[in-house]
Amino acid sequence: MQTYIDTYKNMRKRLNAYGYAMWVLEWDLETDHPTGAVDYRAEQIEVLSNEIYALETDKKYNKAIDYLYENIDKLDDLLKREIKKVQKELRLIKKMPKEEYIDYQVLLSKSTSIWSKARENDDFEMFLPILEKIVAYQRKIVRYLQTPELKGYDVLLDLYEEGMTTKEYDVFFEDLRNELVPFVLTATSGKKPLSRKLTKNLFPLYKQKQFNMYLTDVFKFDLTHGVLRTSAHPFTSNFSSFDVRITTRYIENSIESAIFSTIHEMGHGIYEQNINPELKDTNLATGSSMGIHESQSRMYENMIGRSYAFWEAHFDHLKEIFDKELKNVTLLEFYQYINRAERSLVRTEADELTYPLHIMVRYEIEKLLISGKLKAKDVAKRWKRLYQQYVGVRPKDDKDGVLQDIHWAAGSFGYFPTYALGSAYAAQIYYAMNKDFNVENAISDNKIEKINAWLKEHIHQYGQSKSPKELMLLATGEPFNSKYYIEYLKRKFSS
Amino acid sequence: MQTYIDTYKNMRKRLNAYGYAMWVLEWDLETDHPTGAVDYRAEQIEVLSNEIYALETDKKYNKAIDYLYENIDKLDDLLKREIKKVQKELRLIKKMPKEEYIDYQVLLSKSTSIWSKARENDDFEMFLPILEKIVAYQRKIVRYLQTPELKGYDVLLDLYEEGMTTKEYDVFFEDLRNELVPFVLTATSGKKPLSRKLTKNLFPLYKQKQFNMYLTDVFKFDLTHGVLRTSAHPFTSNFSSFDVRITTRYIENSIESAIFSTIHEMGHGIYEQNINPELKDTNLATGSSMGIHESQSRMYENMIGRSYAFWEAHFDHLKEIFDKELKNVTLLEFYQYINRAERSLVRTEADELTYPLHIMVRYEIEKLLISGKLKAKDVAKRWKRLYQQYVGVRPKDDKDGVLQDIHWAAGSFGYFPTYALGSAYAAQIYYAMNKDFNVENAISDNKIEKINAWLKEHIHQYGQSKSPKELMLLATGEPFNSKYYIEYLKRKFSS
Repeated sequence: MQTYIDTYKNMRKRLNAYGYAMWVLEWDLETDHPTGAVDYRAEQIEVLSNEIYALETDKKYNKAIDYLYENIDKLDDLLKREIKKVQKELRLIKKMPKEEYIDYQVLLSKSTSIWSKARENDDFEMFLPILEKIVAYQRKIVRYLQTPELKGYDVLLDLYEEGMTTKEYDVFFEDLRNELVPFVLTATSGKKPLSRKLTKNLFPLYKQKQFNMYLTDVFKFDLTHGVLRTSAHPFTSNFSSFDVRITTRYIENSIESAIFSTIHEMGHGIYEQNINPELKDTNLATGSSMGIHESQSRMYENMIGRSYAFWEAHFDHLKEIFDKELKNVTLLEFYQYINRAERSLVRTEADELTYPLHIMVRYEIEKLLISGKLKAKDVAKRWKRLYQQYVGVRPKDDKDGVLQDIHWAAGSFGYFPTYALGSAYAAQIYYAMNKDFNVENAISDNKIEKINAWLKEHIHQYGQSKSPKELMLLATGEPFNSKYYIEYLKRKFSS
Repeated sequence: MQTYIDTYKNMRKRLNAYGYAMWVLEWDLETDHPTGAVDYRAEQIEVLSNEIYALETDKKYNKAIDYLYENIDKLDDLLKREIKKVQKELRLIKKMPKEEYIDYQVLLSKSTSIWSKARENDDFEMFLPILEKIVAYQRKIVRYLQTPELKGYDVLLDLYEEGMTTKEYDVFFEDLRNELVPFVLTATSGKKPLSRKLTKNLFPLYKQKQFNMYLTDVFKFDLTHGVLRTSAHPFTSNFSSFDVRITTRYIENSIESAIFSTIHEMGHGIYEQNINPELKDTNLATGSSMGIHESQSRMYENMIGRSYAFWEAHFDHLKEIFDKELKNVTLLEFYQYINRAERSLVRTEADELTYPLHIMVRYEIEKLLISGKLKAKDVAKRWKRLYQQYVGVRPKDDKDGVLQDIHWAAGSFGYFPTYALGSAYAAQIYYAMNKDFNVENAISDNKIEKINAWLKEHIHQYGQSKSPKELMLLATGEPFNSKYYIEYLKRKFSS
């Protein structure tokens, strides 16, 4: 037994070091990397990927994993989680013939750039052959990975949110459909005019940067273990809790874009920074799941960052910095501006209230595609119909319709639902935290560290050593329940 | 034979990919990396270094290299260079016992931070034990690597400048001593007052950045295959000709610091960008030697960037940007300011004229240390005496004396002389280029691309496929001769 454990741990250390290198190479690509070196870089990445593939398929290593998986009940809890995870990750490599596996990787390496071109040209037909192939592969992956307990689309859902199945998502989205779709139609019908200072002004980038640096201090995002940079699309990038990097994007005619991007990414980032450093040599030193991750980013962005209490504490400082630009703008005007809700076409620009409806559309379509009840060629049409039905608007083109997201082109099916789930988790976690201390007071007293500490204790520290279901039970005392989310949205957007 | 060649080439491809990853990791450390993750990073680097060590000491690979080296005359020219180089690089690993090798690496991993502390505290005694150990290791390295043809300090000199020995350096420095030491004393004795606008003004960073971006265009530094960023100390970082990164440093009370740092690093960078892309999978895709590299950076910085012709072309644009700061400053005043010469203590801040005298001091001391004629404990005293003798000033402390440079702490003995050699190469190369076209006209016509093209054809393209001696002969038609350098300096600083 000990020999197998040593074999596993030794290889884990090596794989982590390779993973770290690949992570920095990816960060570099997204930030500094010059365009003319893309091919050269790809050649080096290919060689390194082969090195990693060789390690992952190493016979001694795989024998050790098989043995440990067969004797999993004899392992301590942490190693149990590690072995389950690695076994799950290696399933596809083991079951899919190598050639098929490589063909699929090659397809994915090209698909996003074709999607990007198709999107630019508003040309769904250009993307269709790729989509068809990717859907066919997803259905194959399902067949390779399915078990008596987990079948069809559930196989994919489980890849992104351990333990969540269509059964549970159906209930969740059914609740949203019943409660939220009619509510949104009412809440977004009467529009109040917004302050022109907020909608028409320019906000100099150096002032925006100053305020965003101030925010890292407000939220206690640790810059000795983190980086805040600028990139085309905001993202969080991390490999260990010691080094967590976030980016934001500054837009001169928007005062809110960078602010809420930064807060959103800090939510992801603080989660990662708070993970127990003792997990560093395992494969568990990252957030538990996509849904739990998104619950943190959305709680920070929406429930904290867009709250009235938050701006009671910080609006004066914002006005100090934007002395000319925000002259005579009131706190209430600003609050209403950053919480305006409207039915719109593009997910990434959607407000907090309508956001989950965008996800519902994608969930429905994925479910139908994987079951075979919908053909790829009919996706664009179905997209338009579902947008009308759920969001209340009908896309005029495919650019801001079915082609708006990269996910399907990247082979990510089963990922979207976690975005809506994250917001719903957040409401339930916030509710539980509020029983321990008055969260709104902590926000208006500029004591976000109290929130960070509670979340660290109840969620963050565990990394992947606990599943999302275990975490929700541990942090909130009950299984996931969508009612907190629906109540939160209705309360906020009724007032 | 072909099997051995295949074994070598296959491993080269793998080693290049690892080298690429380590290069990006190093760039990341120097730019984005947060301070709190240094230990975590070191653990990953250690694992990756072990992976690389295992590849480099792989038996099949080493057998292939030995075989190819024994049959080197049967190889084509390129492979001949490759095998010579790799054989040279592997000598130390092969000859030094593994434990001693690792001990030395551990010493080096700590020595620079101790040096840094000693420097801060102006405490040579704190650094002395480290210096003693490093000198002892250098002497050991010499014993491991020496051959009947190459002995003593020459072994180290050859590591940085292939084919250069004390015999040649002694002649070079002797010439400098005879010609330059007395000349400098005269040239720096009568000081003219400089425009207070240049010495006392502040130059806003955003304006400096604007002018430095303009310079990348003037010099045709290719930003699709390069990066210009800010860092604490300017440097050039590259692994292939496809991706060459330079940094500069902006100082608010100096108009010239960033400009000449950028031009200097562009000299290095353009060299690397111009290397024949077909060398990419070899170990030869980088500059030929330290000296040749420095010849390019110093030619761009001093002979082009500090020339009157250059500012005839660009001073108007500089004045446009610094409209208030440079009001009423004349081209001549600016030219005199950027070419002021004075006897000073710190090498990195020395001007073009006195710079080689700083190097002479270091060369003398290294030679004596390696031969055993000077003890480490007596270095600080000797330093002061030689500064008085060569540069004409006497350091008051060790901080700006013997402790000013990182090189010895990093185990780099034999490196310094290449700095002076680089300037001397540059003068000879410039002289040869000027026979093919009027270089000054190209500069004042803002046609630096003509210079780039000539250097690409005669030097850059070859990378390490030719030795520095071969390149000098090829580019200038004669072996290295210091007279061009001395003539250039005397002409420029007499006027």
